[in-house]
Amino acid sequence: MTAQLQLANVRNELIRLEETIIFGMIERSQFRRNDPLYKPGAFGDALGEESLMDFLLHESERTYAKVRRYTSPDEHPFFADLPAPLLPSLQYENNPLVPNTINHNERIRQVYVEELVPLICLPGDDMQYGSSAVADVLLLQAISKRVHYGKFVAECKYRSGPAAFDEAIRQHDAGRLFALITLPDVEEKVLERVSNKTRLYTSELDALPDAAFVTPEKASRVYSDWIMPLNKEIQVEYLLLRRA
Amino acid sequence: MTAQLQLANVRNELIRLEETIIFGMIERSQFRRNDPLYKPGAFGDALGEESLMDFLLHESERTYAKVRRYTSPDEHPFFADLPAPLLPSLQYENNPLVPNTINHNERIRQVYVEELVPLICLPGDDMQYGSSAVADVLLLQAISKRVHYGKFVAECKYRSGPAAFDEAIRQHDAGRLFALITLPDVEEKVLERVSNKTRLYTSELDALPDAAFVTPEKASRVYSDWIMPLNKEIQVEYLLLRRA
Repeated sequence: MTAQLQLANVRNELIRLEETIIFGMIERSQFRRNDPLYKPGAFGDALGEESLMDFLLHESERTYAKVRRYTSPDEHPFFADLPAPLLPSLQYENNPLVPNTINHNERIRQVYVEELVPLICLPGDDMQYGSSAVADVLLLQAISKRVHYGKFVAECKYRSGPAAFDEAIRQHDAGRLFALITLPDVEEKVLERVSNKTRLYTSELDALPDAAFVTPEKASRVYSDWIMPLNKEIQVEYLLLRRA
Repeated sequence: MTAQLQLANVRNELIRLEETIIFGMIERSQFRRNDPLYKPGAFGDALGEESLMDFLLHESERTYAKVRRYTSPDEHPFFADLPAPLLPSLQYENNPLVPNTINHNERIRQVYVEELVPLICLPGDDMQYGSSAVADVLLLQAISKRVHYGKFVAECKYRSGPAAFDEAIRQHDAGRLFALITLPDVEEKVLERVSNKTRLYTSELDALPDAAFVTPEKASRVYSDWIMPLNKEIQVEYLLLRRA
């Protein structure tokens, strides 16, 4: 079992993903929105029915599938039709999660294209389609990982006091589970940290007009409005699946 | 022509790449050296003659080639046998560079595997082959971009005072060109900035034993010992090609 999947390391992994996500946003924000990226058929027949972003994401996942990325319980593909791993399977013997197939990537992609890109990118088109789509893929994959880490977070919370959870699970009480997993102080701290890190990481870039489009406020909004709610949805869904 | 390729934006682009490289190193350093990644055949026949890292790098470049990444004068592939772009060619009408085929990626890959990975990763094997190789590919591509930006840097320096360069170019005097492009004050500032940024970006990670393996000293050594000398080599080579 890998250190990354041990419950003791969940917090560290979440902190590390903040860097990846903040930098991913800064990277993407240097390009315009470039709407054609997200429109199937915008680049002719060569990409089939897929948008350019989906095409790149799909190709990336095909590659990653071959090196067994999606056999790890902390990775979730956006596409279902991926090739089998070329490498022999790793044993995730001590996978702390209960078996589940929760995957909210469709929703994540929608929120990404419809909300996040318009928030962090200037409107318009700069023809930087390849570079923008590469940045999209990296950022989407990081956000997907962060959101689906809810499974590990939920398992941690469950193990720290199973009794209250067991009752809510038996009663299939999603509202109660939502209340149990909600820790306002912790959420406040995450938002503050994300905001501070963004201020720090963009300070050197202040001289760059195009790159200053990710502000501390926007980064913390991405967390408060999308990443954290989607993460909590997954926590509740995971707990409902958990046999009490 | 894209803003990224305008000479006025070269400095900004170099600064932005520092973030990508520092974060790439932090990301890679969370995993062990994982030497089998770099050994052809270490994972059986499935990857052909390629090492796992090369396999992933090759696949990544095949994908990127399809979205015409390598038609841009600031991108350089590691592999020559890439598919043709699926997208129609972009016009790089105002490409400021003279035509050239300078590509030092073979050397960059060698330095990366033999020097950089041992510097920033703890020895040993943690079986995190897929994740490590993904981090390798992203970091290698960022370093390659940074090093090959030497072409743009050289062009800037040339245009700021062509007379001295023209004479050295006519005489094919690489030593003189090297002296002309060397700006010790600027280099000192870059190293200081890289060191400061690394201190900043790892401060939140101090609690993480595995992730603290990229120190400000190591990051600035990566720049002073490898990135900057390779970049300067390319500057000289580019200028020698430049018709005086």
